[in-house]
Amino acid sequence: MKIIDIIEKKKKGGVLTEDEIKFFINGIMDNSIEDYQTSALLMAIYFQGMNIDETTFLTKYMVESGEILDLSSISDNIVDKHSTGGVGDKITLMFLPLMAASDLYTAKLSGRGLGHTGGTIDKLESIPGFRTDLSIDEFKSKVKEHKTAIAAQTLSLAPADGKLYALRDVTSTVDIIPLIASSVVSKKIASGANHIILDVKYGSGAFLKTPEEAQKLSEVMVEVGKRLNRNICAVISSMNQPLGRAVGNSVEIQEVIEFLKGNMEPDLKEITFTLAQTAFEKTGKFASKEEGFKYLENLISSGAALEKFKEIVASQNGDISICDDYTKLPQASVKYEVKSLKDGFVKNIDALKVAKACKNLGAGREKKSDSIDYSAGIYLTQKYGEPVCKGETIAVLYTNKQDAIKEAEALVIDAFEISDEEPKAQSLIYKIIH
Amino acid sequence: MKIIDIIEKKKKGGVLTEDEIKFFINGIMDNSIEDYQTSALLMAIYFQGMNIDETTFLTKYMVESGEILDLSSISDNIVDKHSTGGVGDKITLMFLPLMAASDLYTAKLSGRGLGHTGGTIDKLESIPGFRTDLSIDEFKSKVKEHKTAIAAQTLSLAPADGKLYALRDVTSTVDIIPLIASSVVSKKIASGANHIILDVKYGSGAFLKTPEEAQKLSEVMVEVGKRLNRNICAVISSMNQPLGRAVGNSVEIQEVIEFLKGNMEPDLKEITFTLAQTAFEKTGKFASKEEGFKYLENLISSGAALEKFKEIVASQNGDISICDDYTKLPQASVKYEVKSLKDGFVKNIDALKVAKACKNLGAGREKKSDSIDYSAGIYLTQKYGEPVCKGETIAVLYTNKQDAIKEAEALVIDAFEISDEEPKAQSLIYKIIH
Repeated sequence: MKIIDIIEKKKKGGVLTEDEIKFFINGIMDNSIEDYQTSALLMAIYFQGMNIDETTFLTKYMVESGEILDLSSISDNIVDKHSTGGVGDKITLMFLPLMAASDLYTAKLSGRGLGHTGGTIDKLESIPGFRTDLSIDEFKSKVKEHKTAIAAQTLSLAPADGKLYALRDVTSTVDIIPLIASSVVSKKIASGANHIILDVKYGSGAFLKTPEEAQKLSEVMVEVGKRLNRNICAVISSMNQPLGRAVGNSVEIQEVIEFLKGNMEPDLKEITFTLAQTAFEKTGKFASKEEGFKYLENLISSGAALEKFKEIVASQNGDISICDDYTKLPQASVKYEVKSLKDGFVKNIDALKVAKACKNLGAGREKKSDSIDYSAGIYLTQKYGEPVCKGETIAVLYTNKQDAIKEAEALVIDAFEISDEEPKAQSLIYKIIH
Repeated sequence: MKIIDIIEKKKKGGVLTEDEIKFFINGIMDNSIEDYQTSALLMAIYFQGMNIDETTFLTKYMVESGEILDLSSISDNIVDKHSTGGVGDKITLMFLPLMAASDLYTAKLSGRGLGHTGGTIDKLESIPGFRTDLSIDEFKSKVKEHKTAIAAQTLSLAPADGKLYALRDVTSTVDIIPLIASSVVSKKIASGANHIILDVKYGSGAFLKTPEEAQKLSEVMVEVGKRLNRNICAVISSMNQPLGRAVGNSVEIQEVIEFLKGNMEPDLKEITFTLAQTAFEKTGKFASKEEGFKYLENLISSGAALEKFKEIVASQNGDISICDDYTKLPQASVKYEVKSLKDGFVKNIDALKVAKACKNLGAGREKKSDSIDYSAGIYLTQKYGEPVCKGETIAVLYTNKQDAIKEAEALVIDAFEISDEEPKAQSLIYKIIH
């Protein structure tokens, strides 16, 4: 078998066989296929696509390219949740304690932020002392003891995906549905959970811009996951506006703690509860959404979820006193209030522009090797549907870079769309694909 | 400017600007663009194409990536002829002496054979002593003195094309019209001629399979050449069957000498004379085709063309006694006659199958570094339209590899299509694009 014949076949619109896909992934792993051949094939896939069989084989061999976590000694019922990435997306940090407080196991391997999207690992690392570099054994034993743990993604899971992704990133071949699907699903399968809930975002602040694209990707991921024997579903929701009010790292941790204390932003509550209800359904804990909803509300009001959060933080060496004293989180030296230029109602807050402003303030990375400022971020004092007066504060910028303020302020002002009419209430959830 | 943005633009069907194409070619030359980025862009070009402006800019900057031969001190009227490659294609070797005998200058840089197509340089090197590794100065002084010279293509002309071609060859991105066009035209422009005659082949033994594809390529090449101020045209002809009766290296030299002695195979005569008449027209030597035809016939019958051939061979150190004694050319140890399996008329001889047989006998290369056997080859004793009896010899195989005979024989038998009816006479020329 020769890679050039495989490239030619795909270029001409052919369907690759299981053997050809296996040959490709093996060739990536043993470096017998050159990067310039891989990138030519990836671009051909952009134009010719891959059917569900090909995508399943690709996912399967990416899983098999590395270690597969075996969590069967812990439980037969382990939930994983994965977001395709957004702005202000701190859902995992509320979802995990809620699951654990519900006696459901979750084992979460998570990534760092890159480009305009934040990463859960970065957010957690803004908690003094919090360790995310758990060994596989530590990770498993913590999941067993506390029903959940969260660690930085290890390179040993689906390493073929890591290699492919690095190449896609520099060859304009990221936005290819079968490749996104196999990348996400292979990592989730290698992570060992049997229930997988995908939190698929679309909109300005997401990778996919329309609900239709998000649905297409979701359908592929769910079908591939099923064919590889996972109980999988996808919750599709809007990421046109940032989730919650806080965007950054330590500012988001603070918002998470407030949520667990009962001060739940409606959008955060909608997404978190929907994902948790879906997990209840999948695992058979509660068949009815209403029952699940009541149960979740009780976990918040009783303080059980917050207690679980503290337990997780403590178990991973984090300082739990931050829960009662936010000044123990990294603090920015500069705090700047952005004022509205007009009266009206907030009709939209462009997530991508807020994310860019946030990155400028120091909260994001351009390259993987960049360091980030945990204290930098933005807090939106006004959100969708809320009235605003000219001169009133609409957002607060946190940074240690005084000279970054001006550009960030302009981006935030530009992000806010203020209209004369009060916009209608809206749901973020578009569809759930089972 | 970033290469990833250029890839993305082309992927989405955008038209690259002159600056973007310049950036791309410069990046290839200074290695600031990685091969995996180049191959992704090439594959995107396969799907999205390039318009004539883009193709012209690409050609222009490939020319400018290296040396440009300046032949203006020799003449303002220098002809170049380039074949897109075929089987038994020895036309250059008859064209050059005819031009020189007509007092027209030609300066020919030529390539070696690769894959199933033969190369003029290999054919010439089968003449004992013949030197093709002329320096630029030697080449120019020989053109000045003898009105023609032929040398192996130098890497210093259009080096960006060389780099691109090496990558296209291993990434299944060879068959892309704007890339083929800019590759051919850039090398011709860098070679310094002002009149360029392209001999564009289509059919089984050619790179392009249909006359329509050949026409499309020809139109692009001619337009790009004109925009870059060359007097350029393309003669499109069929390469479904081998040209002449000899396929190989020393066997083809022998056929060339026979041609110059007046034993002209009709297909060789048709192509060679058409190209020469076109050169007469372009340079203003003869306006009418008929005049040119008579003139060419006279150059053959008077022996003037043969004398010019000997002069060229002698000027490049070759042994001219081969013209009178073919046994001084490399001789194969094995000579094997292939017999017809049935009675009838030759309706077709598949050029690609003959070429493969010839390569098996030792006359071709798979990789550039392979060595070839100059004495290996095939002589077709029967050609299109000729009657054949069962058991009669249809071809003679020449080789030093006894064990290659069987497979080559099968390929040759398979190449011959014998029909009950006598096929109609046919012209090889499809169209001339000015």
